[in-house]
Amino acid sequence: MASGAPHTNGNAHPIAPLDASRLKVQLAETLKPIPPQGSYGFGDIKTDHMLIMTYDPLTGWSAPEIKPYAPLSLDPASNCFQYCTNVFEGMKALLDPQGRPCMFRPKDNMARLVTSAARMALPPFDPEALLVCISKLVFIESRWIPSLPGHSLYIRPTMIGTKPSIKVGASDYATLYTIVTPVGPYFPTTSGGVSLLAVGEHVRSWPGGTGGFKLGLNYSPGFVPQRAAAALGYDQVLWLLGKEKLITEAGAMNFFAVVERADGGVDVVTPPLDGTILPGITRDAALVLLRAHAADPSKGILVLPADLKINVEERELSVRELAAWAKTGRLAECFGTGTAVLVVAIERIGDVADADPEALAEAANPDVKTPPVVDIEMKAGRGLGAVGTALWDKLLALKEGRDDFQGWSVLCE
Amino acid sequence: MASGAPHTNGNAHPIAPLDASRLKVQLAETLKPIPPQGSYGFGDIKTDHMLIMTYDPLTGWSAPEIKPYAPLSLDPASNCFQYCTNVFEGMKALLDPQGRPCMFRPKDNMARLVTSAARMALPPFDPEALLVCISKLVFIESRWIPSLPGHSLYIRPTMIGTKPSIKVGASDYATLYTIVTPVGPYFPTTSGGVSLLAVGEHVRSWPGGTGGFKLGLNYSPGFVPQRAAAALGYDQVLWLLGKEKLITEAGAMNFFAVVERADGGVDVVTPPLDGTILPGITRDAALVLLRAHAADPSKGILVLPADLKINVEERELSVRELAAWAKTGRLAECFGTGTAVLVVAIERIGDVADADPEALAEAANPDVKTPPVVDIEMKAGRGLGAVGTALWDKLLALKEGRDDFQGWSVLCE
Repeated sequence: MASGAPHTNGNAHPIAPLDASRLKVQLAETLKPIPPQGSYGFGDIKTDHMLIMTYDPLTGWSAPEIKPYAPLSLDPASNCFQYCTNVFEGMKALLDPQGRPCMFRPKDNMARLVTSAARMALPPFDPEALLVCISKLVFIESRWIPSLPGHSLYIRPTMIGTKPSIKVGASDYATLYTIVTPVGPYFPTTSGGVSLLAVGEHVRSWPGGTGGFKLGLNYSPGFVPQRAAAALGYDQVLWLLGKEKLITEAGAMNFFAVVERADGGVDVVTPPLDGTILPGITRDAALVLLRAHAADPSKGILVLPADLKINVEERELSVRELAAWAKTGRLAECFGTGTAVLVVAIERIGDVADADPEALAEAANPDVKTPPVVDIEMKAGRGLGAVGTALWDKLLALKEGRDDFQGWSVLCE
Repeated sequence: MASGAPHTNGNAHPIAPLDASRLKVQLAETLKPIPPQGSYGFGDIKTDHMLIMTYDPLTGWSAPEIKPYAPLSLDPASNCFQYCTNVFEGMKALLDPQGRPCMFRPKDNMARLVTSAARMALPPFDPEALLVCISKLVFIESRWIPSLPGHSLYIRPTMIGTKPSIKVGASDYATLYTIVTPVGPYFPTTSGGVSLLAVGEHVRSWPGGTGGFKLGLNYSPGFVPQRAAAALGYDQVLWLLGKEKLITEAGAMNFFAVVERADGGVDVVTPPLDGTILPGITRDAALVLLRAHAADPSKGILVLPADLKINVEERELSVRELAAWAKTGRLAECFGTGTAVLVVAIERIGDVADADPEALAEAANPDVKTPPVVDIEMKAGRGLGAVGTALWDKLLALKEGRDDFQGWSVLCE
């Protein structure tokens, strides 16, 4: 699928592959002023340049271009507007101790983008060639990389279907572009943690659905439930599936729970990659680090007590289990992982206590007609606990190129 | 939500409603040549004009404009590309016997668009004002309405979120536009019917999902399964849900089955509006007409034998039931309904016969390693049966303004 070799269409025209050696760079004549670090939130600032290329079924990929940031001009019948053939990736560039821009496991993002594009029946492309072009863009935009803690240059590769027809069907035309934006913390909260409302009446993803792919269309159905959660005082939604109230994702993050065992160790539990959750790269990095640490705690891969036994489980996880663990004082902490947040503490989870008559009675309030929501609290309180903190520290060190693990940090050049 | 009265934002600026009296018309200087009727398929032709307006959270709706058909210019960070906040409608204009353009139940489309926009957390608008503007566009483009049987001017209202930020969240900016395109038959088959492959491993919609809304994002996940069905020789996918193999939709159509009863009457069965299927306007029209006919066959609302007893059922319907009915010779016909197709015969349904050892044995072929697919055949053969034909005739007469029922046909002016 992602072969760089030329192939032909039915008319025997040559189809050009995505070819990084054809990259054209047109620099902006004047550069924009950079807003002061700490003055901005997430995702609003436009830098000087963008990377863009287009696919035509007769000729293949155009020469990639880095050019001044500019609007896209598209036919109103385009497939991307009509049928949402839109996929994206989220990556970050940070400065290493020598001030050089680096990215974290960027090949994994490229591989996932290939998979996403295929799921939307979009044209294939060479992920290695795309990464060469993105690295060049980041290098050119490196003056935009903030140095404040918790800040970075967020990278957003995006691919959209541009077939100019309202006929329901796959788009054999596409535009593949990348924009970058300097970002501060995703959740600029004072406590450092986020609150979640468990939601089962709206379902983010399901078996046989698209929840396991990074598609734009997985996100907008969550906006209305998100508003409802915010109105009840929660930052994000904890997505549940089915009568079993299985946890899938937390907002747009993967979910982890740390549970104390009777033997003094902890279980670190996260839902499995069953097609209903995003195969997060931060999720995977956390699992690899936890397992590597657990295999030989003496190596000190994570800064945790050497005698803490860690058992990592990818398995189905119900919000009812969380409530039960919290009740018996075993729920050490929960956290979310993702490129935007890295690791963020979940300080409480509001859940309609439908299955626990005791909790129902406890939460009953004659003045409130909506079902009572009971908060599940963590032993760690409002911030990260020991495991979350150890992962945050290690992952940030790896992302900032201060540390290395399996070559995960990659220089942009 | 859809009030036309001005309201204010938090800063006490006036927020303009969508106001049809502010419609500006800028006609194209030269008009395009119209391709010969019969020379085109579905959805590729661009006419001379489009209708467009934009929403800004500080100022509200811009004055609607009818202007020459032109590309949209949008920030690459726009919410519509990143998170697929895109909704649409499908309507048709035909010429009545006096040559005047008319639409079918257009207020129902407007009401559904309001609902879709709300589900995507897009800004509200006045649906009556939008309909006034769309009618004007159709009137201006009426030279594009084909007169050939099976042809029409397809109308595509579209609303997209244009907030220029990659922050995950609702779009408080939007563009609302309408394009029109002359169309021939959606399925230009010789037999007049379509074949369906029943698919359960990809699931179009789910309880708590968005299948009951007309969102762009409900369509693209079907493109890959659609390609797989086409490779097996089927025109479209019959979407199943769950172990019960419940039928939801057929391609992008609502599904109907006509089953012969022992008493000589027929059951007309279609899945219920449980949130997993589109509340189709053609579906509703078919149900209303069938029930009105059944209540008093002597009125001849539908051209069917006066002694044919019709029982209309909106209920869960499994593909296994279809197979059982076909086996006992009771499956008179199946058809799909939708704006694009009106009523189309389903000539066969391929299904993996997982639950019927006899059928499995029958279909077994040692040369084929994929699960055997068994075709469910209709008594009506490849075309519409009596009920489908009666609905087609009546709906076409109503759409062409040759007949009236409850004021469903509305002139554009």
